[in-house]
Amino acid sequence: MSEQPRESAEADRRGGEGRSAQQGDWAQTWIGGSTIDSISVAGRDLPGDVMGKLTLTELTYLLVTRRDPTPSQRRLFDAVLVSLADHGLTPSALAARLTYTGAPEAIQGAVAAGLIGVGSVFLGPTGDTAEFLATAIARHGRADLGRTAALAVEEQRAAGLRVPGLGHPIHKVEDPRTPRVYELAAEEGLLDPHLELLELVAAVHADRSGKRLPINGAGAGGAALLDIGIPVEAVRGVVLVARTAGLVAHLVEEAARPVGMPLYLEVDRRANQT
Amino acid sequence: MSEQPRESAEADRRGGEGRSAQQGDWAQTWIGGSTIDSISVAGRDLPGDVMGKLTLTELTYLLVTRRDPTPSQRRLFDAVLVSLADHGLTPSALAARLTYTGAPEAIQGAVAAGLIGVGSVFLGPTGDTAEFLATAIARHGRADLGRTAALAVEEQRAAGLRVPGLGHPIHKVEDPRTPRVYELAAEEGLLDPHLELLELVAAVHADRSGKRLPINGAGAGGAALLDIGIPVEAVRGVVLVARTAGLVAHLVEEAARPVGMPLYLEVDRRANQT
Amino acid sequence: MSEQPRESAEADRRGGEGRSAQQGDWAQTWIGGSTIDSISVAGRDLPGDVMGKLTLTELTYLLVTRRDPTPSQRRLFDAVLVSLADHGLTPSALAARLTYTGAPEAIQGAVAAGLIGVGSVFLGPTGDTAEFLATAIARHGRADLGRTAALAVEEQRAAGLRVPGLGHPIHKVEDPRTPRVYELAAEEGLLDPHLELLELVAAVHADRSGKRLPINGAGAGGAALLDIGIPVEAVRGVVLVARTAGLVAHLVEEAARPVGMPLYLEVDRRANQT
Amino acid sequence: MSEQPRESAEADRRGGEGRSAQQGDWAQTWIGGSTIDSISVAGRDLPGDVMGKLTLTELTYLLVTRRDPTPSQRRLFDAVLVSLADHGLTPSALAARLTYTGAPEAIQGAVAAGLIGVGSVFLGPTGDTAEFLATAIARHGRADLGRTAALAVEEQRAAGLRVPGLGHPIHKVEDPRTPRVYELAAEEGLLDPHLELLELVAAVHADRSGKRLPINGAGAGGAALLDIGIPVEAVRGVVLVARTAGLVAHLVEEAARPVGMPLYLEVDRRANQT
Repeated sequence: MSEQPRESAEADRRGGEGRSAQQGDWAQTWIGGSTIDSISVAGRDLPGDVMGKLTLTELTYLLVTRRDPTPSQRRLFDAVLVSLADHGLTPSALAARLTYTGAPEAIQGAVAAGLIGVGSVFLGPTGDTAEFLATAIARHGRADLGRTAALAVEEQRAAGLRVPGLGHPIHKVEDPRTPRVYELAAEEGLLDPHLELLELVAAVHADRSGKRLPINGAGAGGAALLDIGIPVEAVRGVVLVARTAGLVAHLVEEAARPVGMPLYLEVDRRANQT
Repeated sequence: MSEQPRESAEADRRGGEGRSAQQGDWAQTWIGGSTIDSISVAGRDLPGDVMGKLTLTELTYLLVTRRDPTPSQRRLFDAVLVSLADHGLTPSALAARLTYTGAPEAIQGAVAAGLIGVGSVFLGPTGDTAEFLATAIARHGRADLGRTAALAVEEQRAAGLRVPGLGHPIHKVEDPRTPRVYELAAEEGLLDPHLELLELVAAVHADRSGKRLPINGAGAGGAALLDIGIPVEAVRGVVLVARTAGLVAHLVEEAARPVGMPLYLEVDRRANQT
Repeated sequence: MSEQPRESAEADRRGGEGRSAQQGDWAQTWIGGSTIDSISVAGRDLPGDVMGKLTLTELTYLLVTRRDPTPSQRRLFDAVLVSLADHGLTPSALAARLTYTGAPEAIQGAVAAGLIGVGSVFLGPTGDTAEFLATAIARHGRADLGRTAALAVEEQRAAGLRVPGLGHPIHKVEDPRTPRVYELAAEEGLLDPHLELLELVAAVHADRSGKRLPINGAGAGGAALLDIGIPVEAVRGVVLVARTAGLVAHLVEEAARPVGMPLYLEVDRRANQT
Repeated sequence: MSEQPRESAEADRRGGEGRSAQQGDWAQTWIGGSTIDSISVAGRDLPGDVMGKLTLTELTYLLVTRRDPTPSQRRLFDAVLVSLADHGLTPSALAARLTYTGAPEAIQGAVAAGLIGVGSVFLGPTGDTAEFLATAIARHGRADLGRTAALAVEEQRAAGLRVPGLGHPIHKVEDPRTPRVYELAAEEGLLDPHLELLELVAAVHADRSGKRLPINGAGAGGAALLDIGIPVEAVRGVVLVARTAGLVAHLVEEAARPVGMPLYLEVDRRANQT
């Protein structure tokens, strides 16, 4: 490897000038800590101010935004998380189950194997939509969202890129999750710029391309996460919390009713039958 | 590898007798599915019956128990999950951050790397305590928990094994999470056999060993998960959902304020300085 | 988590007594290092003494034993490694391929997912056999291997455990790898105590159980690795180097001729067809 | 997730037209297989034609190129592999060691955690250089490599991208691996277009940028892998085989002389000392 990133450090190491005075200052975190008679998370006393008071969803929100969600934000956050927790026997769920087949003694490894595959193909749309919308607003402002939508779609098309968050191979007319996300956001007064922009983007895209594509559930989820205040750089991460719940459920089911071993055996039989 | 587990399948493959009629019957899951105009999770309509109605904690409970939690179970489940979400710059959090240092383009890989290390040393106590308590009750019954505690502790000591869930290197007098778990369980009327048994086990252990060890937070959490109805074989899994939230938070922080690169650079400098 | 392992450190942290004087002494490794005009591996100059001089197999041997292999040891090491590199579309290879399906941008993640599943079920026999044989010799000596074999088999049977390294679901009469391992070891003069003991173990086992099981290829490989001087605690590790070669090959094939996506699609179709 | 990739399959699933006739044809691999009395790898008989005949390096070459290497290709392949096996206590090695700290029962998981971090930052240069050189030749031909170098460097600079394979933070005048790679390639008669092009690229870059950067060892390795016939899409993969050897060595050392636990304890102490 070229060790490119070591540059400054190496300069330092070889040069020897005094990093020692401050050498410990990187060893800090706001996420959690402990002392002899206390444990803290997010700067709060864990037993007194977190246990019994915050749900896991609320703690997740707190940890990535450093604020408490409002009840409305909390409800929409939960709705998006549960909408992304599982989609059946996906490649990720199958990888987790097959890993459990080989190493049932380490369930955390099987969950990890499932998460590794939640990459560009299957995690993409939620994070991609969030980045597309956040970038569009950063560049073109939120004063005139119609103009922002038009410019963003044109830029994307000029660059030869797909507009993320639109279209679905099965739900060609409507993704059943999308109207529910918009309905909940409206109920909670959270129909903010990103969800609105996504609707305008869909309309502009239909106009420019002559092809009407519905907003998919992943795109609506990505927009909603921004509208409840999740930082764009945390969108891909929080989705993983939801997906871990789905993967754990698959593995609990796998222990009782295996898919991995019979799947392997059938594939092996077919592969060697020729 | 010896391919030991392939036995029945191989017999089948070589023998050729007709598995074909039933060959698809393993490809089933209750966790999630979809049709042209619907998406389901845990057998329920995702947009109509899950989104906006269940929290991520409630869905996790539903997925591993196939029942809805009562409000009390839900509250105690959340309390245990948030108590296990993070413990600062643990080996697992450091491994996740160092993985992000090398591959920032794949946050899911960094989370996965963190989870892989949640093994016997750091995930152990919660799962071990749950298994110890569940086994004790399965063997010796819940009619006389004092007797069950005595027998279980004696069996463990006879086998030369540590009694799990007791003792803590820092919190030598009391783990601040433990009284909070018991307090919440009492408030919610959930002080059931496993939490009770763990207290009796601690007392028997002090009596037999002459050394009073407090119940640690991990042990109390494991007992509480059983008392709210989490199956013993799902205890290690559900803890991972909580831990994923903590790891994601570490990685969001890492992107803004790196620990991985300066840690590496300091270690590298020290290693090569001799 | 109970943080049990933090005991000494925590005592130290809280107590505050001076670890500072020696705080850097753990940051050392013999594996590799670099200075401004040199790079070393295993204490040798990488460009001058390793590149062009050692094969990857020889470097692996050097790194885990801290000695150079003899040509005979090198040949047998390579033979065992190539015998364990691949076994077709195993659960591990399928997990790697399915992970690539979801995250083709991160091939290292797909390899990692495949490795995670190389656990007790599929990596077991090689490591288990090595541990069984090494323990038997440690306990009962190598002076009378027949006696050692008898005692080891009896202990294993008394404990209700399977004797590792024997039996194969397909190759019921003979595993084709086993005679080849013995043949190569004989050719190279490496038929040492562990390979010999394994043959005696197979004979004792047949005698005691009344059931003749052939030595499987994994067991023979584990014994051979010990006889060429691989430390027993490194056996599970070195097998992973070989398996990585197989997994990489599967992923290069997967990119050209996908198995993951059609596998998923067929499973998904079956799962939702009911 | 939007399930975009499911399109054709879903069309198929919903449409119901007969995939059954050909449903098994994806379950094929050339990598490995077995029958009742044989095991094959790369289409060859494992015991007869691979064990005792091919080194792990040769099998790796065969598996990704489907050809045997010449002795010269084999020697240069080994030289590049050993040059990339380890670089001391890198973030990847530290992540592997810290994972072992938490889950010593699953060494394959610790290796996997180390591999996951071999991403864009630390695996990048080898694969990036290979892709850059292969693309340059595909676009501009190998007839006039000087012109190809000039065009490729200009395109890269016009796109605002760094030219990969050049420069090193420590070895500012010369990376000690690079002359050795060129020397070995010359000795073996393998100084082919990619290694030559890389030298021309370095010269053009120095001319255009006014800044002379040495070819780094990762870049030279990437070029050499192409010159020995490794397909460009397999470059990132084969490097992982070498890196696995390094990671396994770190973990064997870790078991005897831990870095992970004291590293954690020192970081934890510093983090909580404020």
